[in-house]
Amino acid sequence: MLNNKIHSQIIKKKSFLCVGLDIDINKIPRLLLTLDDPIFEFAKQIIDSTNDYAIAYKPNIAFFEAHGAQGYKSLEKISKYLNSNFPEIFTIADAKRGDIGNTSQMYANVFLKDLDFDSITVSPYMGSDSVQPFLSFKNKYVFLLALTSNKGSEDFQELTMSNSAKLFETVIRTSSRWKNSDKIMYVVGAKNTKEIKKIRKIVPNSYLLVPGIGAQGGNLKEICKFGLDKDLKLIINSSRSIIYASDTHDFAQIAKNEAKKIQMEMESYLNKIK
Amino acid sequence: MLNNKIHSQIIKKKSFLCVGLDIDINKIPRLLLTLDDPIFEFAKQIIDSTNDYAIAYKPNIAFFEAHGAQGYKSLEKISKYLNSNFPEIFTIADAKRGDIGNTSQMYANVFLKDLDFDSITVSPYMGSDSVQPFLSFKNKYVFLLALTSNKGSEDFQELTMSNSAKLFETVIRTSSRWKNSDKIMYVVGAKNTKEIKKIRKIVPNSYLLVPGIGAQGGNLKEICKFGLDKDLKLIINSSRSIIYASDTHDFAQIAKNEAKKIQMEMESYLNKIK
Repeated sequence: MLNNKIHSQIIKKKSFLCVGLDIDINKIPRLLLTLDDPIFEFAKQIIDSTNDYAIAYKPNIAFFEAHGAQGYKSLEKISKYLNSNFPEIFTIADAKRGDIGNTSQMYANVFLKDLDFDSITVSPYMGSDSVQPFLSFKNKYVFLLALTSNKGSEDFQELTMSNSAKLFETVIRTSSRWKNSDKIMYVVGAKNTKEIKKIRKIVPNSYLLVPGIGAQGGNLKEICKFGLDKDLKLIINSSRSIIYASDTHDFAQIAKNEAKKIQMEMESYLNKIK
Repeated sequence: MLNNKIHSQIIKKKSFLCVGLDIDINKIPRLLLTLDDPIFEFAKQIIDSTNDYAIAYKPNIAFFEAHGAQGYKSLEKISKYLNSNFPEIFTIADAKRGDIGNTSQMYANVFLKDLDFDSITVSPYMGSDSVQPFLSFKNKYVFLLALTSNKGSEDFQELTMSNSAKLFETVIRTSSRWKNSDKIMYVVGAKNTKEIKKIRKIVPNSYLLVPGIGAQGGNLKEICKFGLDKDLKLIINSSRSIIYASDTHDFAQIAKNEAKKIQMEMESYLNKIK
């Protein structure tokens, strides 16, 4: 599956950087705290300063739910701000939802219709009918959790099944045969760069979202070696190392510099593709 | 692990019924729609009419998120109403969250601290460190998804691992050895009554939450045969068959009758325990 929005952004910006908006009120510059909606203001300034280098933004929903009704309003404003000012940029609601059909449908309506994100992260544990409702909207996509970047990925995702495949491989292989699977992309943790090679073989045509370069310790060069080819179906997320690069008045400029640094490294890998 | 709150309610009410609050604005009596907060008003009347028979209430978070900021306020009011008027009744936030540590911590704060629910449903896919933050609060509990009641449970949960156990058995066995595992209870789908027997053997001392009698088609007698013993560590949820039993002015009374009917059947099984 080719996603025109993602693909044209990668070509135009020579970047496959997604900026994660894990906005923690305790980590943003104190000078914003006197404003009406510091979370939105912080997001707006980060978006304004980094959008030359970012092809996608990924708000982490937990950080908004943490502020209850006000958090929902901030999230809504961020989504509207992105859709109005940067409609060409891809948006990902990092919500990791997944439930029985009628309940998944509710979550799908919230994030893909009401909040109008382009995509949402979904947990695969409850199987096909828990994911299908998220695949029922035109031009909306799912990032299915396959292999995550945390230590706990060893507990179940990396276990071997009776057919010798690992659970995360089974999740990818099985879901790639589901109805509307052309709308499924995969979350693949950055600590497992060799696994990315394996996954690339199972789903050569699927976009992979790799979280965790920067604070979570992933290595950009290694990830690109295995995950990036001429089809350009790789998105790499960085959150904390960009948005919290500085907590003073120049935070937006410093975030911009950090994003640019990553973009330039990405450009060098893109230039090497034959 | 013995949960005093749950245990004493089961003894007192001769019931192990949890009423699921999957409150769909399109299904509640139209006469409530003119009120300021129809969702809260519906929940309040259902709680007032069924609390003689219910030992727990389980709001389904998706149905509140569907209403954005207003939905959060309704959920907050329901939690406060339950904690103020029925502090002896156990509450379950059916949220099915689970993410990397710092993000799970955010979700845990929302549901177990800010909204002050007694427990939350959590997805196991991301492993131990994604669940631990939910286990770090005093007197707060986790219902870990093990075997769910939907068709998609076959896709991954029921697959066989290299050691011949199924994935859901592995989830239960592994998590029962985690730190703070005395605070973990399990969600076990009602369509698999024989599996409940197996699970009971793996975790003889854990509470099992069985969703889906009524609308999801589970059979109460069968579930009790395998899941209920003298330790009384079984909670059975019913949502739609109680709360939507009627959509006219007498909905609360009809819901009460339905809850009572289930309680009486439960009482008969409790009486047979030696």
